[in-house]
Amino acid sequence: MAQRAVKQERAVRTREALVQAAAEVFGELGFAGASVSKIADRAGLTLGAMYFHFKSKEELAREIVVTQPARVRPEHESEGLQHAIDITLTWAYGLAEDTVLYAGARLVMEQEQFNAPEENSHRQWTDIIACDLRAAQAGREVRRAVDVEAVARLVVNACTGAQMHSSIESGRADLPQRIEEMWRVVLPSVAVPSAVARLEFGQSRGRRV
Amino acid sequence: MAQRAVKQERAVRTREALVQAAAEVFGELGFAGASVSKIADRAGLTLGAMYFHFKSKEELAREIVVTQPARVRPEHESEGLQHAIDITLTWAYGLAEDTVLYAGARLVMEQEQFNAPEENSHRQWTDIIACDLRAAQAGREVRRAVDVEAVARLVVNACTGAQMHSSIESGRADLPQRIEEMWRVVLPSVAVPSAVARLEFGQSRGRRV
Repeated sequence: MAQRAVKQERAVRTREALVQAAAEVFGELGFAGASVSKIADRAGLTLGAMYFHFKSKEELAREIVVTQPARVRPEHESEGLQHAIDITLTWAYGLAEDTVLYAGARLVMEQEQFNAPEENSHRQWTDIIACDLRAAQAGREVRRAVDVEAVARLVVNACTGAQMHSSIESGRADLPQRIEEMWRVVLPSVAVPSAVARLEFGQSRGRRV
Repeated sequence: MAQRAVKQERAVRTREALVQAAAEVFGELGFAGASVSKIADRAGLTLGAMYFHFKSKEELAREIVVTQPARVRPEHESEGLQHAIDITLTWAYGLAEDTVLYAGARLVMEQEQFNAPEENSHRQWTDIIACDLRAAQAGREVRRAVDVEAVARLVVNACTGAQMHSSIESGRADLPQRIEEMWRVVLPSVAVPSAVARLEFGQSRGRRV
């Protein structure tokens, strides 16, 4: 049994090493430019060892895109509007230091090559933000008449566009500032003034566990 | 002189045929997948004839991206907020039928390969929307305290993200609806209620000259 546990642990480590290597290669070359042999090389593994864990580069790319929300875990506990803000800021700060998040942001632009249309990452993030906004509506932070799905789509679309814009102009250095700016424009339409006054921004909200 | 005019007219037509052919190829294959020979083939021209007009595929891609605003000319005359809305809706409807706009939307994702960072298309569109919003502020449609540049960046970022999202989920069929939805969320924060009440949406605002 002990030997089996060692084997399982090794498999988990190998799998994570492959995801990291794939993230590096996708981040540098994009989906089209990457190949399974480049990824196996980068991980220091044989192709056979790689295929044991991932059948194709499509599968690796999906893994990177799908696990993004799990990698964006704000340090502070929060709920409702503050949680939605914390998630977007944690993502914006995290992109600079996390290879897998960075690769995910790049892969988003090519996702029709490896993701089914109904599993796209926009929808995945929209569901997460909408969930926070519904909690905020139940808690009377967000006005009752607000179309929560529409606001969630706007937030996710604006984050996607801001990431592309900021990547070109500042290598993403000003992305957290752009995300805060977005919330400052959107919030007065969406939230009651007392709730807006309580919300916190700034780098401390963007730290990850 | 008459012969010279004929020659000039022919040059203009050849140039436009090259831009159309390049738009088709970029729209299908992206910037990385396109090549000057594929574009010349599509236009039915020799490489020599092509190089007379455009020195590289970079130059063709820049031409397509830079001339986008000139291709988005709303049918209705308007100013201020209504003009900003008309431009975004005309762009959203136009993407479905204009090969060059469609190629431009795709090339935006690869523009760091052919555009200087300070000439990026996000900034180009942000300047256009900011100009409308400043006019709207001068005309007291937009509140005095509003940061016009921040709103313009949000609008352009949200349009970029909406285009990508809508392209995956509906082949861009729901893009105009997403653009209207974005304005409906943003406007109450930005504009005075009487101005919001006057604004028109819908397909008739999205027609081009």
